[in-house]
Amino acid sequence: MKFKKNNHIFVINFNFIDVVSSKNIHDDFMKEAVRLASENVLNGGGPFGAIIVKENKIIARTGNSVTQTNDPTAHAEVNAIRQACKKLNTFHLEGCTIYSSCEPCPMCLAAIYWARIDRVFFGASREDAADAGFDDSLIYNEIPKDYKERLVPFTIIKGEEFKRPFLLWEKNTAKIEY
Amino acid sequence: MKFKKNNHIFVINFNFIDVVSSKNIHDDFMKEAVRLASENVLNGGGPFGAIIVKENKIIARTGNSVTQTNDPTAHAEVNAIRQACKKLNTFHLEGCTIYSSCEPCPMCLAAIYWARIDRVFFGASREDAADAGFDDSLIYNEIPKDYKERLVPFTIIKGEEFKRPFLLWEKNTAKIEY
Repeated sequence: MKFKKNNHIFVINFNFIDVVSSKNIHDDFMKEAVRLASENVLNGGGPFGAIIVKENKIIARTGNSVTQTNDPTAHAEVNAIRQACKKLNTFHLEGCTIYSSCEPCPMCLAAIYWARIDRVFFGASREDAADAGFDDSLIYNEIPKDYKERLVPFTIIKGEEFKRPFLLWEKNTAKIEY
Repeated sequence: MKFKKNNHIFVINFNFIDVVSSKNIHDDFMKEAVRLASENVLNGGGPFGAIIVKENKIIARTGNSVTQTNDPTAHAEVNAIRQACKKLNTFHLEGCTIYSSCEPCPMCLAAIYWARIDRVFFGASREDAADAGFDDSLIYNEIPKDYKERLVPFTIIKGEEFKRPFLLWEKNTAKIEY
């Protein structure tokens, strides 16, 4: 999924209505995300938790489940997005705020943008995480690089026919845009 | 999940054994990823496909299923990683190569790194995707920014107690590291 040209969703979202009215409520939501992170460690998972809030109600509560579910994408924030979307029966989360026990990694950050979440709060910083033995600075550094200069080898295979899926997409009048 | 300090997995992976022996086989695998992307459009999904190959065998074949499954993280590459991990009963994909019909977005790129995939081939470029109405340049631009300068508001809530999950993790002798 890519952003559509001229899609000003982020500009529109600047005018979000804050879902809480005081700093204390942000603190309370953050404490719940951190409580989930601690609980997750006691249940055999990684030390990360997240919640998603809409209209002052928690609609998703998750921990990191990479090792329990054999899914390297199952970070707390990605799990929360999937859970919230399932609950709301939608693939976009406008009007929602995510509280993560720790600063999101680049995968989770991009997932938050794809999900159109309005606002992000986090507790521990990426430096705190690195001090504890978790460090995502390598990936943060890799993303802006030209693909030819990445540590993991990236190779383009050129072919006009590889654009065919886009042509089919454009012609498909029944498509669901996202 | 974050990378552990002093984890030289990417350096080690530089010595990967190429899973195919000729450019034509790379072409064939790419054609299959693109075929899946086209098929996915005809099935009502987005114009993206991916496969994961291990020891010359395709172990995952997927399309983008964001709209069909109400999951904004269900890009073709993320789906392929989830499928391959499920098949191999693991949360790491060392020795695997991913072929994506289109240059991975930042979420998929980071997911590829977390999954420890050895190598990436892609067909259409991000510019081709943008020309077709899909553009992820906004997210590529956001990731390297300081969190205070992002278009989606990011706020840190500071508290010493928010580091508690990391302390529990360090003390947990039964933890599964990842």
